[in-house]
Amino acid sequence: MSGWLAIVGLGPGDDALVTPEVDGVLAEATDVVGYIPYVARIAPRDGLTLHASDNRVEIDRSRHALEMASQGRRVVVVSSGDPGVFAMAAAVLEAVEHGDAAWRDLDIRVLPGITAMLAAAAACGAPLGHDFCAINLSDNMKPWALIEKRLRLAAEADFAMAFYNPRSKSRPEGFGKAVKALQEACGDDRPMIFARNVSRPDQSIRIVPLSQVTEDMADMRTVVLLGSSRTRIIARDGAPLVYTPRSVDQ
Amino acid sequence: MSGWLAIVGLGPGDDALVTPEVDGVLAEATDVVGYIPYVARIAPRDGLTLHASDNRVEIDRSRHALEMASQGRRVVVVSSGDPGVFAMAAAVLEAVEHGDAAWRDLDIRVLPGITAMLAAAAACGAPLGHDFCAINLSDNMKPWALIEKRLRLAAEADFAMAFYNPRSKSRPEGFGKAVKALQEACGDDRPMIFARNVSRPDQSIRIVPLSQVTEDMADMRTVVLLGSSRTRIIARDGAPLVYTPRSVDQ
Repeated sequence: MSGWLAIVGLGPGDDALVTPEVDGVLAEATDVVGYIPYVARIAPRDGLTLHASDNRVEIDRSRHALEMASQGRRVVVVSSGDPGVFAMAAAVLEAVEHGDAAWRDLDIRVLPGITAMLAAAAACGAPLGHDFCAINLSDNMKPWALIEKRLRLAAEADFAMAFYNPRSKSRPEGFGKAVKALQEACGDDRPMIFARNVSRPDQSIRIVPLSQVTEDMADMRTVVLLGSSRTRIIARDGAPLVYTPRSVDQ
Repeated sequence: MSGWLAIVGLGPGDDALVTPEVDGVLAEATDVVGYIPYVARIAPRDGLTLHASDNRVEIDRSRHALEMASQGRRVVVVSSGDPGVFAMAAAVLEAVEHGDAAWRDLDIRVLPGITAMLAAAAACGAPLGHDFCAINLSDNMKPWALIEKRLRLAAEADFAMAFYNPRSKSRPEGFGKAVKALQEACGDDRPMIFARNVSRPDQSIRIVPLSQVTEDMADMRTVVLLGSSRTRIIARDGAPLVYTPRSVDQ
């Protein structure tokens, strides 16, 4: 059996952020599996079958990919960003753990990618330059109370923060609640950064004092960053630079 | 003035993890600045001057890079991993904020890279597949008490965790103290992952129950990951797969 499964990250959008390692496995693949807009990034070619599926079918998609690999196909599961950060790698491994025992013996690799928070941070400076955390704001898979608890603890730890999936049409109210919790917990006016379509031609970066944030500033194409209490803004003629200093006064 | 400064990430070691974007600016550079082992990764060529410097001179190195860019040079500051994660981007921006006012008007870009925790996570599955934090365990730039506070709050938040700079010859005791604090705060036997020389030919991945961790398991070439309370290990004939499920029971 020569099949294999690679779970790869395509980065946030710009092809110049796809690693050569990922390009290499895509060149060897017989099948590419993933959410419609990510599969749309893969150039068609002879011998490659593209399997695009809708959102929220991650486990079905994973089983399909594992089944094909077990039949000897060379299968690439594509995520945007990094596959291990709120993306397909955990879904595929969940399917492995609870699925056909033979799937455990497959050649399964995870190939990292540039996750959205790193591209967003780079686009405005270095706001994640000190200790930080990454929180998925979707409550599809966890109770909202746990999200709020984590926001308050992250503020108490004085982490910089990155927020994935801040707001969607089916969850219009969560981001506003998160902002309110953060305003209370942080008690200052540190910058929140809205990076929309990061690395794409229509990228926009908006830096807003936390007290002035409104829930409509985020959507599902936005990754949101929040500075720590020590994050600095360097004003200049062009877009300001935001960074969190490496050191804390001792 | 046509000079510019790009602060780039070379990824964890394997050239197949360097983005085409970074290769592109390196091809245009006149000067490359960085810590000795990172500059050693850049191929020499006519018209390119390599400026390698020792560790712990990040601000001097930053000023040198900014000075050269202000003189019209095309300067690339190299970090391993991602430049915005415990690397050179924050140091350069600190030098900008406190340095020559003209430096603010320079063309300064930060280009993201594959940071060590993402490569380490991919190498063993998806241990950062749910909310997580990244903490620099070096107390060179912050008090140890703050590190311990963050460890305890991160455990309370049930984050998966990534630890950079876990242990060095000049700080032999910190990692042991961190492990003790984590053992107390977590109160379970979740897996700790030691990823040494990740993505290099001599990469090693070691998965150890938290209660059995000893301080000698980490050094400066190791990035350490710790699961959340829900992290799973999938046993199989080859190396086990570790992942943190996407969902929390509601």
